[in-house]
Amino acid sequence: MTEVNNKQVILRNYITAFPKDTDLYVTSSSVSTKFKLPTDTATATSNSKVLAVIVKNLYLSCDPYQRLYMKKIAGLSTYTPGSPIFGYGVAEVLDSQHPDFKAGDLVWGTTNWEQFSLLTTPKNLIKIQHTETDVPLSYYAGILGITGLTSYVGFYEVCSPKEGEHIFISAAAGAVGQIVGQLAKLLGCYVVGSAGTKEKVDLLKNKLGFDEAFNYKEENDLDLALKRYFPEGIDIYFDNVGGKMLDAVLLNMRVHGRIAGCGMISQYNLAQPEGVTNLMHLVVKRVSYHGFTVRDYYHVYPKFLDFILPYLRQGKIVYVEDMVKGLEVAPAALFGLFKGHNIGKQVVAVDHE
Amino acid sequence: MTEVNNKQVILRNYITAFPKDTDLYVTSSSVSTKFKLPTDTATATSNSKVLAVIVKNLYLSCDPYQRLYMKKIAGLSTYTPGSPIFGYGVAEVLDSQHPDFKAGDLVWGTTNWEQFSLLTTPKNLIKIQHTETDVPLSYYAGILGITGLTSYVGFYEVCSPKEGEHIFISAAAGAVGQIVGQLAKLLGCYVVGSAGTKEKVDLLKNKLGFDEAFNYKEENDLDLALKRYFPEGIDIYFDNVGGKMLDAVLLNMRVHGRIAGCGMISQYNLAQPEGVTNLMHLVVKRVSYHGFTVRDYYHVYPKFLDFILPYLRQGKIVYVEDMVKGLEVAPAALFGLFKGHNIGKQVVAVDHE
Repeated sequence: MTEVNNKQVILRNYITAFPKDTDLYVTSSSVSTKFKLPTDTATATSNSKVLAVIVKNLYLSCDPYQRLYMKKIAGLSTYTPGSPIFGYGVAEVLDSQHPDFKAGDLVWGTTNWEQFSLLTTPKNLIKIQHTETDVPLSYYAGILGITGLTSYVGFYEVCSPKEGEHIFISAAAGAVGQIVGQLAKLLGCYVVGSAGTKEKVDLLKNKLGFDEAFNYKEENDLDLALKRYFPEGIDIYFDNVGGKMLDAVLLNMRVHGRIAGCGMISQYNLAQPEGVTNLMHLVVKRVSYHGFTVRDYYHVYPKFLDFILPYLRQGKIVYVEDMVKGLEVAPAALFGLFKGHNIGKQVVAVDHE
Repeated sequence: MTEVNNKQVILRNYITAFPKDTDLYVTSSSVSTKFKLPTDTATATSNSKVLAVIVKNLYLSCDPYQRLYMKKIAGLSTYTPGSPIFGYGVAEVLDSQHPDFKAGDLVWGTTNWEQFSLLTTPKNLIKIQHTETDVPLSYYAGILGITGLTSYVGFYEVCSPKEGEHIFISAAAGAVGQIVGQLAKLLGCYVVGSAGTKEKVDLLKNKLGFDEAFNYKEENDLDLALKRYFPEGIDIYFDNVGGKMLDAVLLNMRVHGRIAGCGMISQYNLAQPEGVTNLMHLVVKRVSYHGFTVRDYYHVYPKFLDFILPYLRQGKIVYVEDMVKGLEVAPAALFGLFKGHNIGKQVVAVDHE
């Protein structure tokens, strides 16, 4: 019996404003969990050069960038209304035409938001050597996957940090922010984060080891708030939010400061983005703003894994995961990112009962 | 007779809006062109470690950044109301306490806007080996000085250009823009510039070898104008203007594009800078904006001079100079930069009759 029911999370239509949970809906279709005619398929695929795998999805990563795929942007590929959305996740291989994968393999990489996926581009999958680790498998949908690698390359490769530098992180209690802050502390930086609730601020200061943290929603003047924590200015800004916070940070950057542009979550749901007025400080203070995406740094992954696993095992890096179960609640979990509902990394555990 | 009259260009007061010529005024004082007591002075200065030079200023460079020194910016040094303004220029040493300089030497570097200057920081002066060159001395107030070095390091060090890349330059008929465009053509790039008059557009296309040029004042939609010249997008943007043009450029940057932040002349005279709304393209397309100043690159000067002199002598790089004579007209020349009056490099020849 290889035909099974397959729950899927579908994009209803392109979204132009703040998303509603109903902009995504859950439906079912039937799917085969095995390739039907192994021999014929092998011949067919060797001709067509498509070597697919069928996977059972286990954990899905909720990432702010996914909102960008829900609207049309010239020159960029997006989600297709009527089809399941995709993202990063952890999965188990059920059947494979590809020589690098076999049934039973655990993988992380790009997959669809559904219970089972036929993946025609398994080159985006990385095998998980899970027997060698003593951390939860779901971590590969976060700190041991895209989230951790983003934090690592964003901090080390983009920011060129030095011991003792002063670093500010926005959305610091989010998936990436929490890790960047801890990497910066391990390097000996002075680290301040902003977040949107008292609970998150407490987490940053008391559990994640940030030197300082503040609730940006309680500040009337972000410039003054930053001057309170950075009287001598900011060397590195890890930008997860863009908009007004970026504008205030620009006023407080030090000469030769560096800004890593990881995301601009405050802007994704605006029909018209906010104007940033203080860009002249980039020139006057010789500051760089470097937009980056982890997709340019997959080659760093083995090095990153060697770096991060010992810290995780020794408890020197803490990882906060916010997990919900079931595809039915996946839309609310994803859109909750934009309301600040998540604390730490938002993950969906796919239901398979 | 070493006491002479010394005309000076003085800042009346800090400027908050668009400057008027009367915000600078010309006055006279008396100045000595020789140190009075060579022996005593040598003793005194060896104690105080000040080894000054007295120079006769010959050419003064008019640069947009000077406007920034005319208002208060926290943490940055500015001009002092009631004192002569300073900038880059070419001068002849009349007397020297410094072992590196002697009377008769020609130098370029930081000097004051006046006929004669006592310079207590001659480390900012570079000796001109003028007998070895066959180019006008005034070029050291431009293409062989700060302007050329800015163009060279901005293009080669900040933009990391590759042959065949598509480059856009704003204020392209200005001092730096004209040189950057020619450097890019020499490297085999496709080069488009914007300027504010038909005359300048003609200059770019017909004399300076730009592939295309357009008058931004005649475009209703800068985004559409850029799409006309860059249907496949922009690899490198050399930003001299900031503001609306930058916002339109961001929409047209290619993945992994680079922006060199040389200046934002469109913003210097605004009480409130314009908001730039398309910064999300920095993240989505992994683009960097790198603010820079030539002051971080003086060590490149010898290499730059070896590079540029042969091109100048062979006529392979054309240099357009816009020269006025006399300190009385210097304020109008400087502020003319913000009205687009200059074509090419604006220089003031200091009068000494």
